[in-house]
Amino acid sequence: MSLNLKTYTEHFTNPLYLESGRILQPYDIIYETYGVLNEDKSNVIVICHALTGSHHVAGVYEDETKAGWWDGLIGSGKTIDTDKYFVICTNVIGSCFGSTGPISMQVSYNEPYRYKFPVITIKDMVKAQRILFDRLGIHRVEAIIGGSMGGMQALQFAIHYPNFANKIIALATTHATQPWAIAFNKVASEAILRDPDFKDGYYDPEIIKEQGLSGMAVGRMAGHISFLSHESMDEKFGREYKLTDGLYELFGKFQVESYLEYNGYNFSKWFDPLAYLYITKAINIYDLSRGFDSLADAMRKITAKLYLISFSNDLLFRNFEMKELADALKSIKNKNHTYIDIQSDYGHDAFLVELEKFEHHIKEALDGN
Amino acid sequence: MSLNLKTYTEHFTNPLYLESGRILQPYDIIYETYGVLNEDKSNVIVICHALTGSHHVAGVYEDETKAGWWDGLIGSGKTIDTDKYFVICTNVIGSCFGSTGPISMQVSYNEPYRYKFPVITIKDMVKAQRILFDRLGIHRVEAIIGGSMGGMQALQFAIHYPNFANKIIALATTHATQPWAIAFNKVASEAILRDPDFKDGYYDPEIIKEQGLSGMAVGRMAGHISFLSHESMDEKFGREYKLTDGLYELFGKFQVESYLEYNGYNFSKWFDPLAYLYITKAINIYDLSRGFDSLADAMRKITAKLYLISFSNDLLFRNFEMKELADALKSIKNKNHTYIDIQSDYGHDAFLVELEKFEHHIKEALDGN
Repeated sequence: MSLNLKTYTEHFTNPLYLESGRILQPYDIIYETYGVLNEDKSNVIVICHALTGSHHVAGVYEDETKAGWWDGLIGSGKTIDTDKYFVICTNVIGSCFGSTGPISMQVSYNEPYRYKFPVITIKDMVKAQRILFDRLGIHRVEAIIGGSMGGMQALQFAIHYPNFANKIIALATTHATQPWAIAFNKVASEAILRDPDFKDGYYDPEIIKEQGLSGMAVGRMAGHISFLSHESMDEKFGREYKLTDGLYELFGKFQVESYLEYNGYNFSKWFDPLAYLYITKAINIYDLSRGFDSLADAMRKITAKLYLISFSNDLLFRNFEMKELADALKSIKNKNHTYIDIQSDYGHDAFLVELEKFEHHIKEALDGN
Repeated sequence: MSLNLKTYTEHFTNPLYLESGRILQPYDIIYETYGVLNEDKSNVIVICHALTGSHHVAGVYEDETKAGWWDGLIGSGKTIDTDKYFVICTNVIGSCFGSTGPISMQVSYNEPYRYKFPVITIKDMVKAQRILFDRLGIHRVEAIIGGSMGGMQALQFAIHYPNFANKIIALATTHATQPWAIAFNKVASEAILRDPDFKDGYYDPEIIKEQGLSGMAVGRMAGHISFLSHESMDEKFGREYKLTDGLYELFGKFQVESYLEYNGYNFSKWFDPLAYLYITKAINIYDLSRGFDSLADAMRKITAKLYLISFSNDLLFRNFEMKELADALKSIKNKNHTYIDIQSDYGHDAFLVELEKFEHHIKEALDGN
């Protein structure tokens, strides 16, 4: 069978009431589906994307060569088998790939929101998805799966819509963003804000597409450090120097520098800097316990079976942060959960690149009751 | 007795032959001394500074309130006792506090070197110091002590001037800079280079002094992350939010963000961006084994007693990098050395802020034979 990739956009005219007290109205959500929805709509799996991810999680578009960001995991006969499951992934609100975000046109002003866009939280992202699924007639799903910010969404689903999913699988994430991660986001946001081409959000979108925003590139380089680990850098780059460069040239480069430069500048052409500011803000203020007496108190609402998967040397969201979640669950009676720490040298990136280390755990979770 | 702080500048007209094959001529070295040189000049201790440090290692200048960067360690009755020792610290060439660097005037052009300044290595920094000491009639010293880039200098002294020091004490450093550290330097150098006020090195020094260079500030923020650790950030900042800021304000700040912002922008007013590019370059290409068959081969030249002190959760120069040095020493017969790993949560900054954890080791080293 084929992947049956389809992309849709839904338009919503009702107000979306945000955690901040503000509203978003109207708004769009773009999403992608794979596989076929069965008759009783009982075969749905929701995938949630990370900071710079999109709804394009699997398959290859006709005019492109690069596959979706979790293509290794999702497809016909793969771990998340599209012959069996109907998989949906939406682009979060606040992002820049089709769902409403800070560069979207503000209705009745006929210009982009920019800083007028309200601060969005992970809970808001999840609420918007829940409303979309409602419209699609999907009131309960088999599983919600996500890594990093996608894991944050999966956990928010578990707490705020406890009857919505049978299983929640959260990878490489945390219960509340810690200062180390906030610090890296700060470097990126400062680099963006201080770039004169950013112009307080009044940048020329065409310039971004053509040459990128160097502040965004610098911020992304810092981000890449946080996604890697000492071990993966030692392994990947060591002290290799670019063959064409002389050691005593001021701008001669080590391989690790070339890697950061290439990926940083490339990224700055395809990701919107305002969306970066808004999504990192959502990540920074993410805290599952907000509105509850404690983390355990928040956890008490969960009825889904929870699977927590951390990676041993993830420096962005440390494995012990996932362990704290597991411990909070343990402290409550009858909370069905599994916590697995995967030995990996890849750092945070492991959830994207070391599929072979954890895909069997996802398969077991989906096959189990 | 008093600290007897004195600051001098020496001018050199002979060429300094650099590792790159280029020469620096003429050049100045600024240095500071504490205590009194005894008659047979046998009580000298050399201190080497880190990336953004200076020759001002102890005491307080008349018109200032802030003490030198290792003031807790050096002074009358302190661990490095200026009643007993004559302490010298020079500002490295390539820096911006009085020794010749990229913002120094290029003789016969009557304008600063800028990019015409040659790439300097740690070995070059050490060579220039050795020539200064020669002029001062100091041909052998009791100890050379330094942390971070200061430790790199101490180790280069040990290898390239094996008869110069009785003891070498290197803290929080490495035998060759690894990609993790190079990556952080890359973020800083890109941030500097992309700042339009940097103007390829043709910036206005007055603007730097008054408002700083925002690219330098962004780079320093990344630097601060590398100096800290998850644990020290959790302890220092947690998820504390600035009291005056609202959680849902896009530019509302966590304490960790305020810390980075304050220190980053403050730093950008007192440190020169060209010097930052040149000194981080020296750090990036630092490798004790360069010119030798192996690290052990380089170590074979050492005759001084070596003290290696690492800090357990230093993320910039990991303790196992020091351990590799110690292991290389162990593999050679009769190499007198001590390796100590200090348990600390402070990350790389420990060598500057947790004196109480290691000063007794320095005292023991100085008191021993």
